[in-house]
Amino acid sequence: MKNNSEFSFCRGRKPVLDLILKTPERCSTLLIANNVKPPFLDEILQAARDNGIVFQIAAPEALDKISGGERHQGVICKLTETKTLELEEFLKTLDEKSPSLLVVLDHIEDPHNLGAVIRSAEAGGASGVIFAKRRSASPNDTVIKTSAGASLRLPLIQVANITRAIERLKEFNFWVVGLSEKSDVSIWKEKLPERCTLVVGAEGSGLSRLVIENCDMLVKIPIKKESAGSLNASVAAALGIFEWAKNFE
Amino acid sequence: MKNNSEFSFCRGRKPVLDLILKTPERCSTLLIANNVKPPFLDEILQAARDNGIVFQIAAPEALDKISGGERHQGVICKLTETKTLELEEFLKTLDEKSPSLLVVLDHIEDPHNLGAVIRSAEAGGASGVIFAKRRSASPNDTVIKTSAGASLRLPLIQVANITRAIERLKEFNFWVVGLSEKSDVSIWKEKLPERCTLVVGAEGSGLSRLVIENCDMLVKIPIKKESAGSLNASVAAALGIFEWAKNFE
Repeated sequence: MKNNSEFSFCRGRKPVLDLILKTPERCSTLLIANNVKPPFLDEILQAARDNGIVFQIAAPEALDKISGGERHQGVICKLTETKTLELEEFLKTLDEKSPSLLVVLDHIEDPHNLGAVIRSAEAGGASGVIFAKRRSASPNDTVIKTSAGASLRLPLIQVANITRAIERLKEFNFWVVGLSEKSDVSIWKEKLPERCTLVVGAEGSGLSRLVIENCDMLVKIPIKKESAGSLNASVAAALGIFEWAKNFE
Repeated sequence: MKNNSEFSFCRGRKPVLDLILKTPERCSTLLIANNVKPPFLDEILQAARDNGIVFQIAAPEALDKISGGERHQGVICKLTETKTLELEEFLKTLDEKSPSLLVVLDHIEDPHNLGAVIRSAEAGGASGVIFAKRRSASPNDTVIKTSAGASLRLPLIQVANITRAIERLKEFNFWVVGLSEKSDVSIWKEKLPERCTLVVGAEGSGLSRLVIENCDMLVKIPIKKESAGSLNASVAAALGIFEWAKNFE
């Protein structure tokens, strides 16, 4: 496990409440602003008591300071360390045959997009999200909030090299599907493999050449020709994730 | 036409360049920071010259001040007025029979989500996006940027009352489909109507009761039970939009 101890807060009502209810082991201390009112106040206090989480009532300004000006809605939870896994460590938790989706992000830099992808990946039933250690967003508190807490529950795997990770996943019986505007194959016409690694490119530049060369298959999400000409990376990822998830409906 | 003259900037490299190339009539003055370098500098200057847009080179601090601290990547374009349409005015531009998708937002408050929905709506071939005049995000510069400029191209319709707008669209031969977690019908099992109004609820609370009662059909996006339990509103909208768009592939 790698610890990113520099990022250690979850903020916002729904993210913090989800965190307490679903992964209380990740909660260290809960701070509640003294202007938070019932019924939410009762709800979060009850959740904290039920899960044995220490809480403090504080001035809103104290929370502003901790959040560095980001919106917190009167609740901030100090986290135990955010954890990412090494690829080999993660693979030990998977079997080599069952249906599984892994989402690989080829250097997505916007933490909002990273968080949004993690949220959709969890909701769609993916086994994990893989992203690069460098030139990529890292799981900070913006990511936790945008992911609605999913980044604290879903396995997150940081790798030194995306192309090598893809090669390793092929050895582990994953079929690697890249989302690329350059493909002639519509994602709606291809059934995605049940054991699938979905590779999503960066905002703007898309998949890198080496990554494209290493995909088993490239598919595109057809968009209207007269439009701005691209989808947000997290929207593209979500469309791919749920196209896979449909296999199991 | 209603003018929101308090919102009058587009910022960021791709949004501004898209704006100049695709809707130069919306560009008033272009500001470029004196630290912007080739090749982007050449590209944007050429685009401005080709389209007869007045530009000024300025200190980065001047752009910071105009953007109010929001990221601008060294380029800001002052806009002619952002325009929204009244529903009746918009309906005059549509025929009463052809396939068409309208996206109705039931009080989405986050401008990033509004912008993201508009971007996906344009890419998916929707005819317009309808949202409320009150208790809803409005097309400001965050929306323009998040939409990658789509909010300057796609018809945006602001209405006083969402329920009444839905009723009016039914008279205009639209079939109204609401996205709701409470539905038992999977969106993947139903072919969406070719002439479709897709209604997407607010972050957190979902569709309001009155809106639900006025939909012709409710569908849900099935998500994994153990997950955080909800999708981002703009992701849900995109999944619905492209489920409709597949009809025409």
